[in-house]
Amino acid sequence: MTHPPPPPGPAPRITLREVAERAGVSRTTASFVLSGRRDMRISADAEGRVRQAARELNYRPSLLARSLRTNSSQTIGLLSDQIASEMFAGESVRGALTSALQHEHLLFVGETGGDPEVERSLIQGMLDRGVGGFVHASMYTQVVRIPSTLRRHPVVLMNCYTRGKRLPAVIPDEAEGGRSVARELMERGHRDGIVLVGEHTAQAVAGEERLAGIREVLTAHGTDLAAIVDCLWWPDPAYRAVSEFLATGRRPSAFICLNDRIAFGVYQAVQELGWRVPHDVSVISFDDSDLAGWLRPALTSVAIPYFEMGRLAIELLLKPDTPAAVQLVPMPMHRRDSVGSPA
Amino acid sequence: MTHPPPPPGPAPRITLREVAERAGVSRTTASFVLSGRRDMRISADAEGRVRQAARELNYRPSLLARSLRTNSSQTIGLLSDQIASEMFAGESVRGALTSALQHEHLLFVGETGGDPEVERSLIQGMLDRGVGGFVHASMYTQVVRIPSTLRRHPVVLMNCYTRGKRLPAVIPDEAEGGRSVARELMERGHRDGIVLVGEHTAQAVAGEERLAGIREVLTAHGTDLAAIVDCLWWPDPAYRAVSEFLATGRRPSAFICLNDRIAFGVYQAVQELGWRVPHDVSVISFDDSDLAGWLRPALTSVAIPYFEMGRLAIELLLKPDTPAAVQLVPMPMHRRDSVGSPA
Repeated sequence: MTHPPPPPGPAPRITLREVAERAGVSRTTASFVLSGRRDMRISADAEGRVRQAARELNYRPSLLARSLRTNSSQTIGLLSDQIASEMFAGESVRGALTSALQHEHLLFVGETGGDPEVERSLIQGMLDRGVGGFVHASMYTQVVRIPSTLRRHPVVLMNCYTRGKRLPAVIPDEAEGGRSVARELMERGHRDGIVLVGEHTAQAVAGEERLAGIREVLTAHGTDLAAIVDCLWWPDPAYRAVSEFLATGRRPSAFICLNDRIAFGVYQAVQELGWRVPHDVSVISFDDSDLAGWLRPALTSVAIPYFEMGRLAIELLLKPDTPAAVQLVPMPMHRRDSVGSPA
Repeated sequence: MTHPPPPPGPAPRITLREVAERAGVSRTTASFVLSGRRDMRISADAEGRVRQAARELNYRPSLLARSLRTNSSQTIGLLSDQIASEMFAGESVRGALTSALQHEHLLFVGETGGDPEVERSLIQGMLDRGVGGFVHASMYTQVVRIPSTLRRHPVVLMNCYTRGKRLPAVIPDEAEGGRSVARELMERGHRDGIVLVGEHTAQAVAGEERLAGIREVLTAHGTDLAAIVDCLWWPDPAYRAVSEFLATGRRPSAFICLNDRIAFGVYQAVQELGWRVPHDVSVISFDDSDLAGWLRPALTSVAIPYFEMGRLAIELLLKPDTPAAVQLVPMPMHRRDSVGSPA
């Protein structure tokens, strides 16, 4: 992971003033349009001209960060149980940073390790440093309890929610993700011989919801899963469990893997038998991590919208009228080369 | 990447007071020992007792965060060109967070996208919010120019350095990493037929330094690389380049891959020919990313010390007498199952 793509050269910098001049509006108007703020009335015509000028000049909105200077109280605290210990979940931090900057806010980042006492300390430390609102994030979709201190401040939950669902939260639409995976297989003609791989019980909200979505579509097509291969969500356990399953002589038409790491293990197991994906068996998965694009053939996978969750959490935090409800974020499918018709 | 390991339960919380009592020292003394501070004279005996008590009680030092409350100016800004857009580089952010917390500091995190103007804005915004020092980080080891504003404040560079090397910096010891990889192959008896895979020129400090270290050891053993297969540091380009190379009839004894993604592509190419790793060909790599443990057989790889670089950058920033020099961080080798004797 150490090779630079050609570094983006220092392109000539377009200023907000240049955009405003080209659009024939004031700098303030241009700033309001490009930062997405809605607390100033701007005509649709002016807004259109600003956006067009910005496009034509290739103006990058991060420039708005200049006004960070005059808004030193605009500070948000992001509290996460884990930071980037997962392969690509750090994208949610990036989404949050991007949105915060567009709204001229800075971001404290803290890792709680899931420890309520550490979280309370971090909250207090952040409050003492002028933080006005919090994002409480979880690396895995789950039901959480949050410190009572947090409830006294603006807070949005990211990738988690409280049991009563009485706080604003953003989580992936796992059930719909499950439906889309099942639909994809239905459209290719799979009916019998669809095998789910991955433990789907325990605290894992994701697994349960995905399974529910999958079953809903299969039932509507008059079928059901042929089997569930139970294993942890890692390549090696999946490789072992699927190898054992196939050793019994079963011949699935498609594997639904609850994440890309499981799919990696499934590839290893079927390729060891000399089977080709998708000619001999189809594989479809959840995550759309880098791994999905690296496998051979590349893996069709439903994305966890980490960046979008991070972005949306900040948007909701800064909006004055955010409802105290769970907001589902779509999980787009990235189609690659691992799904075909039944053998 | 969505499955929770069993969440760490809320273990009974050991306080600093309990550690101090067991060690027979004051709370302040215990705090100084456990936070690694050196600005108070503490006897080796007392220090030993505190450390032993902490071990026995399973005391977690993050508790030190409690005093965040009274030190609202203790704030550090971490400026990175990219945040977590790479697979595991976010570990450096984690290392920085961990160390900052141990020293009762909080961390602003900002992503510059490599844009000096964005960086200047972020710096100003952070200064306005009480930041006293900065870590300027790069996701790929490289020579950088930093904004002049930064030079007026305490700053440590992480995974990068300035041309004159006149600022404190932490970077991986790439040359020694290269030597250790070559030594590993020498010890297994490889001499001829060692092939390097990956582009090693361009701005990539890592590639050049690793190659220099590798060649140093090979020369000392009276040999040299049999070939260099030039390709981008990704699975697909590596797969194609190595497949083409092998199609000429060459039969290497070992591949040195400049990162784990390249090694993934090499595995795909050789396994397609029916070769087994390491029986038919050895593979060794750099990164020690998650991928290394997921490949079959698991891949021997030299780690990029992201967490340690993050941790060390903060330590150096907070030490009063940090020299303005580049500090090399060791790259430990994680031996797995991909290196054997020549076929």
